[in-house]
Amino acid sequence: MKATVITIGDEILIGQIVDTNSAWIGQQFNTLGVKIYEIISCGDDATQIVDAVNRAKTNSQIVLMTGGLGPTKDDITKKTLVEYFNTELVLNEELWEKMKQIFAKRGAQVLEINRSQAMVPKDCIMLPNMRGTAQGMWFEKDGVVFISMPGVPHEMKHLMEVQVIPRLQQKFSFPKIVHATIMTAGAGESMIANMLSAFEDELPGNIKLAYLPNLGTVKLRLTASGEGEALVSLVNEQKEKMKNLLGNHFYCEGEDPLEAVIGKMLLQKRATVSCAESCTGGYISHLFTSISGSSKYFEGAVISYSYDVKEKMLGVKHETLLTYGAVSEECVREMLQGLLNVSETTYGIAVSGIAGPDGGTPEKPVGTVWIAVGSKENIIAKRFQFFPSRMENIRVFSNAALNMLRLFMEGKLI
Amino acid sequence: MKATVITIGDEILIGQIVDTNSAWIGQQFNTLGVKIYEIISCGDDATQIVDAVNRAKTNSQIVLMTGGLGPTKDDITKKTLVEYFNTELVLNEELWEKMKQIFAKRGAQVLEINRSQAMVPKDCIMLPNMRGTAQGMWFEKDGVVFISMPGVPHEMKHLMEVQVIPRLQQKFSFPKIVHATIMTAGAGESMIANMLSAFEDELPGNIKLAYLPNLGTVKLRLTASGEGEALVSLVNEQKEKMKNLLGNHFYCEGEDPLEAVIGKMLLQKRATVSCAESCTGGYISHLFTSISGSSKYFEGAVISYSYDVKEKMLGVKHETLLTYGAVSEECVREMLQGLLNVSETTYGIAVSGIAGPDGGTPEKPVGTVWIAVGSKENIIAKRFQFFPSRMENIRVFSNAALNMLRLFMEGKLI
Repeated sequence: MKATVITIGDEILIGQIVDTNSAWIGQQFNTLGVKIYEIISCGDDATQIVDAVNRAKTNSQIVLMTGGLGPTKDDITKKTLVEYFNTELVLNEELWEKMKQIFAKRGAQVLEINRSQAMVPKDCIMLPNMRGTAQGMWFEKDGVVFISMPGVPHEMKHLMEVQVIPRLQQKFSFPKIVHATIMTAGAGESMIANMLSAFEDELPGNIKLAYLPNLGTVKLRLTASGEGEALVSLVNEQKEKMKNLLGNHFYCEGEDPLEAVIGKMLLQKRATVSCAESCTGGYISHLFTSISGSSKYFEGAVISYSYDVKEKMLGVKHETLLTYGAVSEECVREMLQGLLNVSETTYGIAVSGIAGPDGGTPEKPVGTVWIAVGSKENIIAKRFQFFPSRMENIRVFSNAALNMLRLFMEGKLI
Repeated sequence: MKATVITIGDEILIGQIVDTNSAWIGQQFNTLGVKIYEIISCGDDATQIVDAVNRAKTNSQIVLMTGGLGPTKDDITKKTLVEYFNTELVLNEELWEKMKQIFAKRGAQVLEINRSQAMVPKDCIMLPNMRGTAQGMWFEKDGVVFISMPGVPHEMKHLMEVQVIPRLQQKFSFPKIVHATIMTAGAGESMIANMLSAFEDELPGNIKLAYLPNLGTVKLRLTASGEGEALVSLVNEQKEKMKNLLGNHFYCEGEDPLEAVIGKMLLQKRATVSCAESCTGGYISHLFTSISGSSKYFEGAVISYSYDVKEKMLGVKHETLLTYGAVSEECVREMLQGLLNVSETTYGIAVSGIAGPDGGTPEKPVGTVWIAVGSKENIIAKRFQFFPSRMENIRVFSNAALNMLRLFMEGKLI
C-alpha cells in the first residue's frame, strides 16, 4: 500500500512558506503502516496539477493533495479536479446556508466569492471542514482514492484526523502496526545507540527501533507489524527491556518534553519552581511557560545577563564574579541561593555559560555551561561542554538544566 | 529558465525531518529570477531517483538534488548518478590526502567507508565541500545542468553560495532582477495592503510587491525585472514612496527582526534595556539574547509569572493586583517602574496579558495584553487585543512590546 502527497501552491515553490504539511502527513502514514512513495510540490497551475496527479496514480493507491482551495482566482485545485474527474460543480444548499449564518453572526456580508466555496463537485464525497470555509473532497477512480484538502495546516490536520484517516481505515485493510515511544535525556544519539546495541541486535524481526534526537533529548520509537493481540504485549515487553537498559536517561513514556514532565511532577508534589538564567536568556522560562497551566507551579525567573543584575537581584558577591567569573560553580550556586531566598519556590534552576560565538577562552571554550539545581537545603552544580553554535547551545543548555532538575526531583542526581 | 529541486531521503517521506532545503533553494532562485517548476521528494532508491531526474529534465534546464551522499550504504545518490551518466568513480588523490590529514588531526583512524567519499565521478565537475566530507557534483547533458549536493542544510547552503549560484550565473544569462526589502511592524497584512492599495495599482508593470507576514511584523519585498542600470534607481524610488506611505509602521530596510534593530539603536545611543515579563514568560528576553553581542545592552529581566514575584521583585502593590488585576495599566506601569528602579537601565519593557487558552474573562478575553515601555522619566502604556492561540500570542505580544519600545526610542510613541 503506497501513497503520494501533492502539495499545491506557488508560495511553496518560491520558498515563501516551508511545506510542513507533507512531513506531518508522512508521520501519520508511517504510523498507519502506509509508505509514502513520493512528495510532489507544484504550482497553482492546472497542467502541473493534472500532470502530478497522473504520475501519482501510477505508483499509489492513495493520492493526497493539499492547497489551492481558497476563494481567490489563483486557487484552481477544485476547478482542475472537476475537469479531471469529468464532473460538475453544484451548490450545496446546506453548506451555503451555514456559511450565510456564520457571516451574519460576524455582521459581515456574504459575497459572490464566498458562494464559490459552497459549490461542491457532484461526484465526490464532501469532507466537511469545521475549521474553515474550504471543504475537503474524496474522489475514487480505478481503485485509487484521491483526497483534496485545504493547505492551512490546522484545517488539514483536523480533516485528516476526523475524516480522511478513519475513512481510509474503513476502505483499506492496513497492516496492523503497534508503536511504543519513550523519551530520554542527558545522552546523545550515539551514546543511547551504544547502550542499546545488543538490545537492537536481539529485537524480533518484526520490530524496528527509530532514534529521533532533538538537542538534548532523544525520542525512541518501537514499531511492530504483524498479526494478533500478542503484538501489543510483545512491543510493551521490549519497551520495558529498553527502559531498564537506559537507566536514568529514560524520563517518560510517550512524547512529552522535559518541561511538561517536570510540570506534572510539580503539580503532583504541590511544589513550585523558579529560574535564574544567564546565557540561556529566558529560554528555560519560555519552555516552562509554553505549557498551558504552568502558572500553577512556575513562579518566575531572574534573567541575570549582566554582572550588575546578578549582584543586585540575586545577591551574587562581587568578589565571586571577579575571582571565579560568571561561568563558575561558585557563581551558579550563589545565583540559585539568591533566587530561592527571594522567590521562596520549592525548587530552582541556575544557569551560566558561554553560548558563543564570542566570549570563549582556552579554559572555558564556547559551549561551556555551569548548571545548579536544587532546593534551599541542597544545591547540586555540574559543568557541561556542548557545541559551537549559539542557537543550539541555548536550546541544549536549557534541556540539560531541565534534565538535572528532573533527576534532582526524582532523587537520582549525584 | 526553469529549475526542478529533488530532495532525496527516506527520512523526508516518513516525516522524520521537515524538508527546509527546498524552501531555501526556492528563495534563492526566486531572487535570481529562475522559476522553480516542481519540488520532488523521493526515497533512497535508485529507480525512484532516476525516475525523478528523468521527469525533471523534461521541464527544467537546471536540476538540483540534495541528500543521499553520506558514507553509509543507504546513501545511494552518487552511485545512481554514476550509472545514470554512464561514467565511473575514480579516487581523487588530493581529496583523499586532505581527508586523511583531517582524521589524523582528530586522532582518528581513516576507514574504508571514508575512502568512498574521496571517490568522484570521472565526468563531473567536483564542487568542493568545505563544511563536510560529501562533495558536490555538477553534471551536464543535453543542455541541462544536474547538481547534486549533501542534504545537511548548512553544507548545502555553503555549496550553493560559493559554488552553484556563481557557476550558474556564469553559464546562463539570467534575467536581471533587483530586489528591495523593508520591514514593518504594528499592523497586520491586510492593514498594510490597504495602506498600499493605490501604490500597488500604480506600480510599473515590471515591479511586483510581495507581503511576507510573521506574527506582528510584515516583510515587504519589491521585485523588478528588466534591463539597464535604471532598474536599481527605479526600485529605490518605489521603495521610498512605500516607506513614506507606511509612516511609523516602517522600521528598517532589509530583513532584520525588531530585536536586532533595537539592539543597534541601543548600541548607538550607548543605552541599555531590561524587561519585566509576565505572560510572555521570557520570550522577549530570549529574542534579545538570540542576537550575538546583546550582552552589551541587554542587562536582564524579571519573569514575574506569579503575583508574589510581581510584588517582591518588582514592588507591584498588593492593592493594585487586587483592585485592577495583573492585566491592567496600573500593574504594567508599576512593573516597569519597579524594574527600572532595580535594574537602572536606560529603557525598559513590561508586559502582562492573557496568552490563553484559559484565564480569559468577558472584559479581558484571551489575547488581551497591557504593555508599558519607557524610561524612569516617562512611561507609556497601551492595551492590545490579539488572537486566541497561546503560542501565537506569546510571539505577537513580544513583537508588539518590541515595536512599542522602538517607537518610544524614536520619539514616535504617543
